[in-house]
Amino acid sequence: MINVALLGLGRIGLMHGENLISHKNFNLKYTFDINKNLADKIAKKFNTISIKTPKVAFEDKDIDVVFIASSTPTHIDLISEAAKHKKIIFCEKPLDLDIKRVNNCSKKIKKFNPKIQLGFNRRYDPGHSSIKKDFDKGVIGKLEKIIITSRDPAPPPVNYLKVSGGIFKDMMIHDFDLIRFYLKNDEVDSIYSSASNISDKRFDKIKDFELASCILTSKKGVQCIITNSRHCSFGYDQRVELFGSNGMLISGNKKENETETFTKSFTSRKKPLLNFFIDRYVDAYRIQLDELASYSKQKREPISSFEDGRRALIIADAAKTSLRLKKKINIKF
Amino acid sequence: MINVALLGLGRIGLMHGENLISHKNFNLKYTFDINKNLADKIAKKFNTISIKTPKVAFEDKDIDVVFIASSTPTHIDLISEAAKHKKIIFCEKPLDLDIKRVNNCSKKIKKFNPKIQLGFNRRYDPGHSSIKKDFDKGVIGKLEKIIITSRDPAPPPVNYLKVSGGIFKDMMIHDFDLIRFYLKNDEVDSIYSSASNISDKRFDKIKDFELASCILTSKKGVQCIITNSRHCSFGYDQRVELFGSNGMLISGNKKENETETFTKSFTSRKKPLLNFFIDRYVDAYRIQLDELASYSKQKREPISSFEDGRRALIIADAAKTSLRLKKKINIKF
Amino acid sequence: MINVALLGLGRIGLMHGENLISHKNFNLKYTFDINKNLADKIAKKFNTISIKTPKVAFEDKDIDVVFIASSTPTHIDLISEAAKHKKIIFCEKPLDLDIKRVNNCSKKIKKFNPKIQLGFNRRYDPGHSSIKKDFDKGVIGKLEKIIITSRDPAPPPVNYLKVSGGIFKDMMIHDFDLIRFYLKNDEVDSIYSSASNISDKRFDKIKDFELASCILTSKKGVQCIITNSRHCSFGYDQRVELFGSNGMLISGNKKENETETFTKSFTSRKKPLLNFFIDRYVDAYRIQLDELASYSKQKREPISSFEDGRRALIIADAAKTSLRLKKKINIKF
Amino acid sequence: MINVALLGLGRIGLMHGENLISHKNFNLKYTFDINKNLADKIAKKFNTISIKTPKVAFEDKDIDVVFIASSTPTHIDLISEAAKHKKIIFCEKPLDLDIKRVNNCSKKIKKFNPKIQLGFNRRYDPGHSSIKKDFDKGVIGKLEKIIITSRDPAPPPVNYLKVSGGIFKDMMIHDFDLIRFYLKNDEVDSIYSSASNISDKRFDKIKDFELASCILTSKKGVQCIITNSRHCSFGYDQRVELFGSNGMLISGNKKENETETFTKSFTSRKKPLLNFFIDRYVDAYRIQLDELASYSKQKREPISSFEDGRRALIIADAAKTSLRLKKKINIKF
Repeated sequence: MINVALLGLGRIGLMHGENLISHKNFNLKYTFDINKNLADKIAKKFNTISIKTPKVAFEDKDIDVVFIASSTPTHIDLISEAAKHKKIIFCEKPLDLDIKRVNNCSKKIKKFNPKIQLGFNRRYDPGHSSIKKDFDKGVIGKLEKIIITSRDPAPPPVNYLKVSGGIFKDMMIHDFDLIRFYLKNDEVDSIYSSASNISDKRFDKIKDFELASCILTSKKGVQCIITNSRHCSFGYDQRVELFGSNGMLISGNKKENETETFTKSFTSRKKPLLNFFIDRYVDAYRIQLDELASYSKQKREPISSFEDGRRALIIADAAKTSLRLKKKINIKF
Repeated sequence: MINVALLGLGRIGLMHGENLISHKNFNLKYTFDINKNLADKIAKKFNTISIKTPKVAFEDKDIDVVFIASSTPTHIDLISEAAKHKKIIFCEKPLDLDIKRVNNCSKKIKKFNPKIQLGFNRRYDPGHSSIKKDFDKGVIGKLEKIIITSRDPAPPPVNYLKVSGGIFKDMMIHDFDLIRFYLKNDEVDSIYSSASNISDKRFDKIKDFELASCILTSKKGVQCIITNSRHCSFGYDQRVELFGSNGMLISGNKKENETETFTKSFTSRKKPLLNFFIDRYVDAYRIQLDELASYSKQKREPISSFEDGRRALIIADAAKTSLRLKKKINIKF
Repeated sequence: MINVALLGLGRIGLMHGENLISHKNFNLKYTFDINKNLADKIAKKFNTISIKTPKVAFEDKDIDVVFIASSTPTHIDLISEAAKHKKIIFCEKPLDLDIKRVNNCSKKIKKFNPKIQLGFNRRYDPGHSSIKKDFDKGVIGKLEKIIITSRDPAPPPVNYLKVSGGIFKDMMIHDFDLIRFYLKNDEVDSIYSSASNISDKRFDKIKDFELASCILTSKKGVQCIITNSRHCSFGYDQRVELFGSNGMLISGNKKENETETFTKSFTSRKKPLLNFFIDRYVDAYRIQLDELASYSKQKREPISSFEDGRRALIIADAAKTSLRLKKKINIKF
Repeated sequence: MINVALLGLGRIGLMHGENLISHKNFNLKYTFDINKNLADKIAKKFNTISIKTPKVAFEDKDIDVVFIASSTPTHIDLISEAAKHKKIIFCEKPLDLDIKRVNNCSKKIKKFNPKIQLGFNRRYDPGHSSIKKDFDKGVIGKLEKIIITSRDPAPPPVNYLKVSGGIFKDMMIHDFDLIRFYLKNDEVDSIYSSASNISDKRFDKIKDFELASCILTSKKGVQCIITNSRHCSFGYDQRVELFGSNGMLISGNKKENETETFTKSFTSRKKPLLNFFIDRYVDAYRIQLDELASYSKQKREPISSFEDGRRALIIADAAKTSLRLKKKINIKF
């Protein structure tokens, strides 16, 4: 069994906790949250030890994995500390909103050569990873285009949005990473971004955007298009299209069930899409833990690394610059 | 050019007429209908010679093809006469409602060894014939099941229904023939039929049925299921499924266009099906004429023959017997 | 918590065991299997008490639910005994292969008025039950046809087949029950059945069938078509179609993931279907337990009852009779 | 009948010719091509008068419509001349490669107030226009995004490409126009373009591109994404997606037929897409003529006007500028 300390018990932390306690390879020993009441309640529910400070976990030699699901600004310090204590680290995305802090951390922890797995859950999605496998097998020849549609069913609360880092760092960062996942031996070279508000004018006030689209180009000339929306009436719209010299691979949406309705005025009407990331990516989150268990025991690179997190953030910064300067931005990692 | 006399200018005759005049291989010389006014009007429109009796066409040596689209009871006599005059014959389905008359005709015309093409249009449908080609190539291995769904958008007028011969001879005869089309070197061996009325009680009065289903078994054991409805709210439902030891082939429905609608309460809603046999089988009717042009000039069997028409009628008779006796009926051709 | 004794630890029993221990409302106290070694191994794994005889469970007042997943011939005796001890009973399908034994049991246990839930898992499938809800809401008007396609990916071992009761009692019994589920206030009135062997000749030897199709008619005239195959190259083919006066509802297949491949020679190629009933009906099995938890605490009829199990068996017997006599069989329950 | 002179008998001219002679409202009187031999051959086939110079058509008072399908550089002069002679004009896209010539022409012909219909065939496609109708009805609320995928099955010959004006003026001009078709009371405000070559290096030599993608923004903030490829292994990929505040409308691809194949390794494999613009847009070209017939007789704006052609060209010029300057270009019409 792999002993785990889970730091952060918000919505995503709770989900990871549920998955950890029902996973055959993990023993969830410690849980921590800055909200003491919540921490105690959850510790009871999960049958874990509620710790008052992450330090307890860092200093416990039995703890193998520090699982970081706390708020974004805490990630970097927790990673640094966990690395110092030779822990295996899982960290939710994004690493931080400030690339300087990430770069500093990167240098600082280098000497510990820590095992870190980033929470880019989409890399583990059965559909998204299935088309990568098919592409790697050569099914569609040379890669020419990657087109990602990613639309949330509804925006998070304004209070969350205000500190989220904006649509590029909070939402599209997933897609920047997916692009890099598919590019593999190629790399993102430049980006142009576009953003606007049409229906939900609250975004104007907080200087953020409900709609954003980017064109990225890879060093080899692959054209990558990402389009995001903060709302989507018909559910959580998550599609990836890989277009190559010999074909195309699509990873499509998941619906509530596989039923269809036909009446006088229409045919083949289907149910709405799964409406929430926890439902849509339920398998991805589970497989992500399988990978963590496997990665913990092997000498190898993780499927999603600290460096992947760092590069996704650099692209997100470039997207913001492009929006400001209204031009294509070359990217240096 | 192949000179044609078209006999019968009802709905289906008119459609054939339009197709004949725009077909590059045919010259529509004569048209005939028992309704003189209609005949003259159409002759003007088609720029053809309106003849007062089919005899004119039979006796004109320039006429290559006699195209029979008149009412069912006239088919047999017109075929006999046309065969005697060495004409190439196209005849709409069904041959007749009375198998004895068909058998007599069969014997009578044998000595003329006439070229006759039956109007089983579905054999020529791009979808239905495409799965036959794929099956013949071995894509699904050994054939085990044929499942045909055939539903008309709305029943014809009661006056037509009364003389139609009933659902098995008027409607399901198409499907009996399709079954035989796919069975090819195998043959229908037995049939069980079932029929009922639920929504449209007019069918009770005329002792006919709005709903009918059959299970046919082939000599090799292939199970064939046909289900018919005289109405279908969402259009003209026309599907064929071939199930084999190594796979399945489906010929599906055709819609108005390839658009989809997504809203809060549903996804992928599509347009209604094409609603009328002339729209749904527009390509089939055109290809049927191509085949008539090709068959006219070649020494070979037609894709749909007089004998196919005779056998489909025998199966329809057996379906009626099965319904009366409530048991499986063995079929002898 | 509801205390459960699980009887039978074969493939299906193990699956139920896994589901029971991870379900929030159940406490799996006892496990039993006639294979002592297996029983002890599983008890260890599940952290349950391995009992040497079901009697222990019957006589333990703490046990609320007796969960019967043992081999078919043991069902009736275990039900009788459990009923006598006032237990809530879950029993896998089929109740028994012999309707007389079922009828006797029915009479015998009547005085105990026991709560019994039958393991007709498909009633709980999100897709299959979703179209029932939509039908009940009136989406398609009056019901006219039910068409069920059910094909197993591969036949079970011959040793199992030999004692299975044949395709109608072992496999199609699910579909007989589904028909009754959708008919609701209507009831099956007659059946005609057809069966054959084409590819797998082992079925001839054991006088069973790899292919079977039936037409059932309801008292109101609804035509019900079932087609079964013991093998299906492309996975576990499970489809239901409800056709009504105003529309059609389809519950379709589930695939590995929602990816599509396009190349020079084809478009929209999808992954194979989920290949095993435990994968395909994973949600159904889970929801079935939710229902058991709910039913345990409420005064009401179960969604799938002992009587449903009895009637499905009567239909299966009629199917066998129809096959022998080659005619339609009227059904009396 | 509307008397027509058809100028230009290349591939597209021939297609228009075939459609014109089979259209019930048009009488194709004159045909013209600079290739005398071809002109005479086609005139014979079409049963038209082969004229040696367009002048004959302009000066014939019986000619209602001058139909321009000749090479792009001839369009402007023919339009000017036809306008002077008060002819109704149909002109293929693009108007010209040089916006100055178009602007001059625009001024010059203003005084004649000519009726001109531009050959933007996609506006007439049943799918593409169906989603416009649904959008106009309010089905998806406020428009937020337009996403167009347009991929040709294979590039035209290099000789054609060299004089084509490049991917933006020759190919993407269709999509620029479609964007404006859907925006209706809104207008394109800016554009950013990206282009590259990966598989077909011939494009490098002629300084053109096989792959291109653009993001356009409308005055109201609608984000418009276009992606083009000069080759597409699986056929002529033509998709439009309208995303709005309350839903999404998709106009999808058309396949050879509606068949599907299932085997051990896949499900629902469909046939390749229609492979050629003349097949894919066969209905659009026919409906375009219906519109020409209707527009000829009515006082109103055409569905696709000279001004639409001019604006599409301005956007194409801006796309080229954006590519050169690597930044967003604001558009002034």
